Amino acid sequence: MIYADHAATTPLDPAARAAMEPYLAEQFGNPSSLYRLGLAGRRAVELARRSIAQCLGCMPEEIYFTSGGSESNTWAVWHAARAALTGPNRGGVLAVSAIEHHSLLGACRSMEPLGCRTVLLRPDGQGILPLEEVERALDRRPALLSVQYANNEVGAIQPIREIAARCRARGVLFHTDAVQAVGHIPLSLAQVDLLSASAHKFGGPKGVGFLYARHGLRPAPLICGGGQEQGVRGGTEPVCAIVGMAAALEAACARREELAARLRRMEEEFRAVLRAGCPEAVFRGPEGAEKLPGLISVTLPGVRAEGMVYRMDMAGVCLSAGAACDQRGRREPSHVLTALGLPPEEAESTLRISFGPSNRPEDGAETARLLLSALRS
Amino acid sequence: MIYADHAATTPLDPAARAAMEPYLAEQFGNPSSLYRLGLAGRRAVELARRSIAQCLGCMPEEIYFTSGGSESNTWAVWHAARAALTGPNRGGVLAVSAIEHHSLLGACRSMEPLGCRTVLLRPDGQGILPLEEVERALDRRPALLSVQYANNEVGAIQPIREIAARCRARGVLFHTDAVQAVGHIPLSLAQVDLLSASAHKFGGPKGVGFLYARHGLRPAPLICGGGQEQGVRGGTEPVCAIVGMAAALEAACARREELAARLRRMEEEFRAVLRAGCPEAVFRGPEGAEKLPGLISVTLPGVRAEGMVYRMDMAGVCLSAGAACDQRGRREPSHVLTALGLPPEEAESTLRISFGPSNRPEDGAETARLLLSALRS
Repeated sequence: MIYADHAATTPLDPAARAAMEPYLAEQFGNPSSLYRLGLAGRRAVELARRSIAQCLGCMPEEIYFTSGGSESNTWAVWHAARAALTGPNRGGVLAVSAIEHHSLLGACRSMEPLGCRTVLLRPDGQGILPLEEVERALDRRPALLSVQYANNEVGAIQPIREIAARCRARGVLFHTDAVQAVGHIPLSLAQVDLLSASAHKFGGPKGVGFLYARHGLRPAPLICGGGQEQGVRGGTEPVCAIVGMAAALEAACARREELAARLRRMEEEFRAVLRAGCPEAVFRGPEGAEKLPGLISVTLPGVRAEGMVYRMDMAGVCLSAGAACDQRGRREPSHVLTALGLPPEEAESTLRISFGPSNRPEDGAETARLLLSALRS
Repeated sequence: MIYADHAATTPLDPAARAAMEPYLAEQFGNPSSLYRLGLAGRRAVELARRSIAQCLGCMPEEIYFTSGGSESNTWAVWHAARAALTGPNRGGVLAVSAIEHHSLLGACRSMEPLGCRTVLLRPDGQGILPLEEVERALDRRPALLSVQYANNEVGAIQPIREIAARCRARGVLFHTDAVQAVGHIPLSLAQVDLLSASAHKFGGPKGVGFLYARHGLRPAPLICGGGQEQGVRGGTEPVCAIVGMAAALEAACARREELAARLRRMEEEFRAVLRAGCPEAVFRGPEGAEKLPGLISVTLPGVRAEGMVYRMDMAGVCLSAGAACDQRGRREPSHVLTALGLPPEEAESTLRISFGPSNRPEDGAETARLLLSALRS
């Protein structure tokens, strides 16, 4: 099998699995308990927090554990919207890019009946947000500006440093959904207020992630509860999952450069083989440093992407037709590809291939060959 | 070691652990993915949902997976508050018992600046909510009435069937936090609109739980995202944790009656031994069928409970001074014990012992003996 859908989810990293082992067994204490079994859990959680902070280059107190990317994104929007809704105007503008993840767009939409408005920023044809678009949005004095670090469908990496600086200069809260970026590319946290991450995108377990909130910013609780996470995120800490996430991120950061180079080579080979056999294939998104290594978005004119996913599955290759969470019961073409200007029929003929650490070097060319033979059959 | 803090958290049930195994390894697919690896994950999630529904006697579509009890409680409050805040009155009353978990009380409080009001229902001295108190609250036409199924500090089991019937008769949305009840006592879902549960309280993993919402009630999303959980709870499903939760609940329900009888015997022995050696000990909460089996709340006059937790830890016994999530950095006596009428000094001299499936039959008497010798040393 060739697993080429790492943007959907990743296999659990062996280092994560090993780190989790004791917490699936005898180390089951509640981190809030005062006896040693509980304190061991608390210590594990705090060591994990420290390790994650080190990978990101931030302070441990800036990391708040969550159930994953969707919670982190919703939380960031809630934090901003709540302040706006309880402020003097009883509402405000949420400015977000049109190619955000559904969790972010959905969270903004869900705040509308309460008094917020959503403004969408338009990316260019490659999926990159022009800075003028950011400036225009900032003119509306939004309660929040949120832009994905890297897009999950076309891999476009945004100029986050420049966007964050512009937000800070105008006193606007800035959030970035870095679910596809954390552990994959070097991150700049400079002038970023809030950042979302999800463990299962970098070799950690599903159902855990974190929200980074810069020192001095106390996020308004989305999930209430006891004193956990500095009193702003309730719920007994899932020690096992948190420990696994930290170990996975450590492993991902340690291999990042080497892996990125390997993925870029696989990608080159994939492109070369596919282009040679199918010259009408159109690659989407930016190239080179502006794109996530190993993520390929390609339109095969006249081919139904969903059908191709099934055929490739039979050929032993896992790949996807757009974002995973978007495929279930989907009735509309990808909002990301549509925002890039693709007509619906092209969007529905677009495949996403995303290589990762579990691939062998030859998987790039091999995936293209198998795709070509599926096209011909 | 005697682990006597099952109300804080429980060891992972061996059946849960075994069921989780494949999902920690090769079965890592995203349940939203269309290829077989993804579909296997989706199938596992839906089988787990069916098994949980069977244990509860409800429909699978009535179960929504969450990250645990705190999320489920916050979600229920959010669902009601959001409807009230976007309704004609732009606000409403949230009626909840004074001895609810912090996640529920906190969620209500967090809705106040947006326009809701919280009304607290007072339990009697044993922690049972009088039905007249419920009637009085219903006179205020609240947007939500929420009462814990069973209390986590004194074990009081509420007359949920009667409360739910009164709410339904008055057209008031009824939620019950059943985190301490699910898997432990037989549940009545009749006329219950929303119910919260947490896996790690019944032998499942931490970081996963569910919200039951009766057929026809579509909860307003708290965590937004893709099409997961009928489109109302975003986030890639933590397949491994969900599968573990279902296996743990199945095991808990299968042994429930036998275990309850065993726990009541242990409890009797604990009480008898403690009373004999320390006649001034005062047991809190109701007795018999109105109390969770195996959960004991006892005041030891003049003894600081927190110090006793440390001493008992040294003696090899894990027990607690109130709710686990309440102990960390606590500055105030338990709101539950205070609501039962205990003065602060008595609340701070109250220990919670909660036996569970991991205990041997002799642990009841043995815990009391060790407690007596700690009192004398």
